[in-house]
Amino acid sequence: MAVDVPDLVDRARRGQPRAVARLISLVEGASPQLREVMAALAPHSGHAYVVGLTGPPGVGKSTSTSALVTAYRKAGKRVGVLAVDPSSPFSGGALLGDRVRMGEHASDSGVYIRSMATRGHLGGLSWAAPQAVRVLDAAGCDVVLVETVGVGQSEVDIASQADTSVVLLAPGAGDGIQAAKAGILEIGDVFVVNKADRDGADATVRELNHMLGLGEARGPGDWRPSIVKTVAARGEGVDEVVEALEKHHAWMAEHGVLARRRAARAANEVETIAVTALRERIGYLREDRRLGSLGERIAAGELDPYTAADQLVAELTGEG
Amino acid sequence: MAVDVPDLVDRARRGQPRAVARLISLVEGASPQLREVMAALAPHSGHAYVVGLTGPPGVGKSTSTSALVTAYRKAGKRVGVLAVDPSSPFSGGALLGDRVRMGEHASDSGVYIRSMATRGHLGGLSWAAPQAVRVLDAAGCDVVLVETVGVGQSEVDIASQADTSVVLLAPGAGDGIQAAKAGILEIGDVFVVNKADRDGADATVRELNHMLGLGEARGPGDWRPSIVKTVAARGEGVDEVVEALEKHHAWMAEHGVLARRRAARAANEVETIAVTALRERIGYLREDRRLGSLGERIAAGELDPYTAADQLVAELTGEG
Repeated sequence: MAVDVPDLVDRARRGQPRAVARLISLVEGASPQLREVMAALAPHSGHAYVVGLTGPPGVGKSTSTSALVTAYRKAGKRVGVLAVDPSSPFSGGALLGDRVRMGEHASDSGVYIRSMATRGHLGGLSWAAPQAVRVLDAAGCDVVLVETVGVGQSEVDIASQADTSVVLLAPGAGDGIQAAKAGILEIGDVFVVNKADRDGADATVRELNHMLGLGEARGPGDWRPSIVKTVAARGEGVDEVVEALEKHHAWMAEHGVLARRRAARAANEVETIAVTALRERIGYLREDRRLGSLGERIAAGELDPYTAADQLVAELTGEG
Repeated sequence: MAVDVPDLVDRARRGQPRAVARLISLVEGASPQLREVMAALAPHSGHAYVVGLTGPPGVGKSTSTSALVTAYRKAGKRVGVLAVDPSSPFSGGALLGDRVRMGEHASDSGVYIRSMATRGHLGGLSWAAPQAVRVLDAAGCDVVLVETVGVGQSEVDIASQADTSVVLLAPGAGDGIQAAKAGILEIGDVFVVNKADRDGADATVRELNHMLGLGEARGPGDWRPSIVKTVAARGEGVDEVVEALEKHHAWMAEHGVLARRRAARAANEVETIAVTALRERIGYLREDRRLGSLGERIAAGELDPYTAADQLVAELTGEG
């Protein structure tokens, strides 16, 4: 049954969590109404500040995300959380135990929490995650936190599509070097050394300072990554993280970086969707029954294979 | 400079080897005039009997091909030879030493010999080989022999696109079993045990008989693969191979198999060309400058990414 999209968008914007969940399911599942949903969301887009959080397992990403939610809620902001696991085949509202892992926010109507774990998804997460962000944005979230589970290429890709990318590390032998290897140092705008009550926190900060070349001179238009120490489980340093995020947000707005990043992110999205559409057509082509009769006409010398292929491609793509 | 295609086709059909070579270069290199060439060839297609030859290295494929050319020339037929090496990056007239390896036919105007070795070629050999066959066919060859170098999947693909597939084996420990593993037993219509003056030729024939299940009852519409022993280097048994080929040719024509195979082959060709065209468009897309301005409009909430992607795909494919 077709969904009443304008009504759903309206209810989502009035703060109904079930309407938001339904919209994410529609865009995530590539429903026939996907285009209608995306078109309806467009005019309400661009308000949310999107923060990506990535880092090695065990660094305390969920705890940090939860602590950030608390901080933003205290400031009266509406917050969306998208927890992304590219390596898991499971997806949907409850599968990663959202309500358990962020129990304190479960009953807060100003917080939307969504897990997404769509390995093998058509077009991959690079396709699904930005659309879920778009729903949370249009639903009126002031901040959207996109938390990825691991530190693989997909995680880096997803995190780097945020307005601001937060890289989390914990004190420990060579964590910073591991992060450098995983290619997440380049994408970090703000670095958080969590579990800073453990031995080695200052060494990790020094290591980061060194690897990021923070001692070197920068041009006036260059962002100087912040490094913040936290103990997220006790809420320590979380206000400083929010402060660092707001500083980066303001710096981006001032230097035109925010608009550039968002335009680049949208262009990536367009590319992913268009490539997926062309790939789908290749799939249709392989099952196309007209191939058989075209083959017969070519074998009879009535047609050449290029003209036949052109006809087929034109028919397959003419719908666009 | 644009080539006068109708003139070239005309000269190829009047038997000018250089015109044939030029046409193959045009189709092989995906020249801008490719479509014009293919359209001009179409009405002259479907005359040639296309024979694929495959088998393990060292079995005497070149010698056997050369012996078949001699036999067909004696019968007054015009013969085209396409020697295909999917593993080599080199292509073109002389690179595989055509004139050397088939020296005796080099000065015969009734024989066209062409090597094709287009690893990394756009769309691969599955794309280029059928088009070269089409040129040789349109140029008036009665028989086109497509000889592949190895026994990999590409070779099997190419050989199986012929009207008749010849699988060559030599006596030796487990050659038949190797062939079975390579998946070439299924595609063989005619089997040739070459170097039959060596020990073990009869054992190889028995082994083949067994593996092909030739002792079993067949339906009236089923082809019973022939097995012929040859010593190609001395021309022994080659007339019997030609006989087996003609028997298969006649059987196919009688049972409608020839038309079916050719239509299926042409359909494969159309599919390969269309898939290549769609893939190319994905390539164009990734370099498309419009992506940037579309991204800006989406970031501004004026457009949604699906509508933008649809527009882009439509523009990229509308030319089809």
